[in-house]
Amino acid sequence: MKGISGFPEWLPQEQRIVDHILGVIREIFELYGFGSVETPAVEKVDTLLSKGDDHEIYGLYRLADPQGGRQRDLALRFDLTVPLARYVAQYGGELCFPYKRYHIGPVWRGERPQAGRYRQFTQCDIDIVGQEELPLAYDGEVIAVMQQVFSALHLNDFVLRLNNRKIFFGLMASFGLENIKAGKVLRILDKVGKLSLADILQLLQLQALPKTLLQILMDMASGAGSSDLQELRSLCDHREFQQGITELEEVMDVADEFGATQNMIVDLSLVRGLSYYTGTLYEGTLKSHPSLGSVCGGGRYGNLVERLAASQKSFPGVGASLGISRLLSILMQKEVFRGLRLTPAWVLVTCQDRQSRSAYLKLSRLLRDGGIATEIYLDQKSLKAQMKYADKKGFPFVVVANAQELEAEVVVLRDLRQKSQQRVNWDELVEVIEKKIAEQ
Amino acid sequence: MKGISGFPEWLPQEQRIVDHILGVIREIFELYGFGSVETPAVEKVDTLLSKGDDHEIYGLYRLADPQGGRQRDLALRFDLTVPLARYVAQYGGELCFPYKRYHIGPVWRGERPQAGRYRQFTQCDIDIVGQEELPLAYDGEVIAVMQQVFSALHLNDFVLRLNNRKIFFGLMASFGLENIKAGKVLRILDKVGKLSLADILQLLQLQALPKTLLQILMDMASGAGSSDLQELRSLCDHREFQQGITELEEVMDVADEFGATQNMIVDLSLVRGLSYYTGTLYEGTLKSHPSLGSVCGGGRYGNLVERLAASQKSFPGVGASLGISRLLSILMQKEVFRGLRLTPAWVLVTCQDRQSRSAYLKLSRLLRDGGIATEIYLDQKSLKAQMKYADKKGFPFVVVANAQELEAEVVVLRDLRQKSQQRVNWDELVEVIEKKIAEQ
Repeated sequence: MKGISGFPEWLPQEQRIVDHILGVIREIFELYGFGSVETPAVEKVDTLLSKGDDHEIYGLYRLADPQGGRQRDLALRFDLTVPLARYVAQYGGELCFPYKRYHIGPVWRGERPQAGRYRQFTQCDIDIVGQEELPLAYDGEVIAVMQQVFSALHLNDFVLRLNNRKIFFGLMASFGLENIKAGKVLRILDKVGKLSLADILQLLQLQALPKTLLQILMDMASGAGSSDLQELRSLCDHREFQQGITELEEVMDVADEFGATQNMIVDLSLVRGLSYYTGTLYEGTLKSHPSLGSVCGGGRYGNLVERLAASQKSFPGVGASLGISRLLSILMQKEVFRGLRLTPAWVLVTCQDRQSRSAYLKLSRLLRDGGIATEIYLDQKSLKAQMKYADKKGFPFVVVANAQELEAEVVVLRDLRQKSQQRVNWDELVEVIEKKIAEQ
Repeated sequence: MKGISGFPEWLPQEQRIVDHILGVIREIFELYGFGSVETPAVEKVDTLLSKGDDHEIYGLYRLADPQGGRQRDLALRFDLTVPLARYVAQYGGELCFPYKRYHIGPVWRGERPQAGRYRQFTQCDIDIVGQEELPLAYDGEVIAVMQQVFSALHLNDFVLRLNNRKIFFGLMASFGLENIKAGKVLRILDKVGKLSLADILQLLQLQALPKTLLQILMDMASGAGSSDLQELRSLCDHREFQQGITELEEVMDVADEFGATQNMIVDLSLVRGLSYYTGTLYEGTLKSHPSLGSVCGGGRYGNLVERLAASQKSFPGVGASLGISRLLSILMQKEVFRGLRLTPAWVLVTCQDRQSRSAYLKLSRLLRDGGIATEIYLDQKSLKAQMKYADKKGFPFVVVANAQELEAEVVVLRDLRQKSQQRVNWDELVEVIEKKIAEQ
């Protein structure tokens, strides 16, 4: 039996760390008032395809009915944004706007099996969706939340690159290039970082662009141009271009005011391939792990919901998506997470005397009733084997008692971290353990 | 745009209740030392089919490659037990035995769409798996945990019916009926409660069973027979039958000792269709909702892992599965859950003066830094509209301040539940709100 390539899973001790990390992320999302939502893993194929981009989607069929077309209209979601758009389109009348939600859950992509490619991975998304309008200040909030998440995960070399799509489209429009031509250039810029600058130049040259524009685009691609927004204003006086710069300034200001003061840089070469963004764009990377590429990203979308449902209303939104699966291997190496308690229970109650099972069970109930997570070892093994189990699983405390001790309602409490032990009466046991837990 | 039949999802306020309920269940599982695991949604088709029973499995195909057979070997899991068996077979060498795990997650069944049938639903499973042996006492623990879960969910009319498969097979063997014949009779008994007793009788008569046996089986099916285990012993002296009664007695004793004293009854007609059970069997129902049928069930399986992987070792296990999706509609009507706070944030900071955004943001940071989940309303609406939003979303507290108050670092704190308000200095705000939260 082998695991399936592309579908990661964890050993119990690792899963404890994963659960802790997802809990930290959830806590920060809720600290800002985002509420959770869980949509089904399955959406209609039509809904998923409405996003336009080509994705590796897994369709579903009934195994008992392999040729049957009746349920061929269902597929697994490939991100959490399209399901959000469908949810807003469907329940818009019952939601409070601005609608702030987070969604932590798996998505699936039918990649051909290859090393380093996940076919199921976990996304942590936040989005804020307005009705008719959504102030730009919310773009700054989303950025601030993501920055706080990376701080809380002790990933302090996180860098967030920012752009605004209006800057690019305004620039193109000022040279009379729109729609198809602009789209072609955007797809070339999307390859910055993947292809060499020489290759980018060659691809741009094939587009027969004005020389000035080519120079500006290559400055963007190489980072040779200014990243000072006031200086950039002089590049082009097209209204949309200037609007993009104004928005970018405001978003960075609000993010600052929200407390996100570090590691934000303007990067005009950032385009993000996804076609639904209409304004703010951002993408995060880790300086220490450039090979990971983008670890979070997102932006402003003006009309995602409307693309799914004919609606009289518009629902502009802004969001960010953090791909946690690829980060987990890095996070699990960190001392701060490796130091976690790797078993859910604090105490293992060992059983030496098989005639006294009911007394051992009474003792473990006493601990649980006191709110202390407790496992009782019911397998009839030697005390030595039970201590080995406690050690291997990482219990902080072990309770040992023989028949005489049970009779006298007293136990030996072993503290496996302090490597100490003490005799404790049953009626003081919860209190003694609570105190030890508080000290750790 | 319509939701997809069979794939339930929730509005934000309902989702808060669902999250709370799953949190309660998780906490009880961990109180007994069960650790979480999350296996992928996807398994190999061969693994899923190894369980033998016929299930409505959803297979996967790549949408871009509808005829391609290459990835046709993958499918969505239909329960959490088969993935557990595969996990133990795969990582057995790295697990601590007895291995206690819980898994809360969705499963999928490719049912044809019809009212009341879910195609995605959430299971809450606990299992304990041993290596070579697993004392019967663990069967009692699993029962006790499930009883505590139903108590914590305020479902006090929960009844757990118990049986042991050895009783049935021992009885059949004492009449010289084994394997195929016994299997046929078992499948008829599995229909008790779904068919009338007259229909059961007719089906059994077709099997040409000895008259004494037919009478015993009909007594089982109708509940007319004794449920006193000592009396039942006299029915049949076959070794396996007597062994089944002994095990049933011990499991009920241990469950008692674990604290599960209520609502357990012996029901010899309980067979549970799934073919992998080898001993203890149980099934829970709610007296007030008989139409729901079984709301949890499980039992002892002797060789589930071995059926998946040729192994030198045996891995006996015992588990229980709680189907939470069908319970949610009942639970959400309960006053105790409806009284929950339906927004993750405690405080809404309103913004009256658009020139003072940075001061409002500073105020909301002050609250968050104090650990109080806080949403700031950044849309430029009237205070009245903002109060309406706070009320609709269910915020307990609203902070109001005009430009002069911001300047003086003072706010008006409105308590929407108490319908009161007070002026509070910024430096006392966290403390005042914490105190109010503690009082609620």
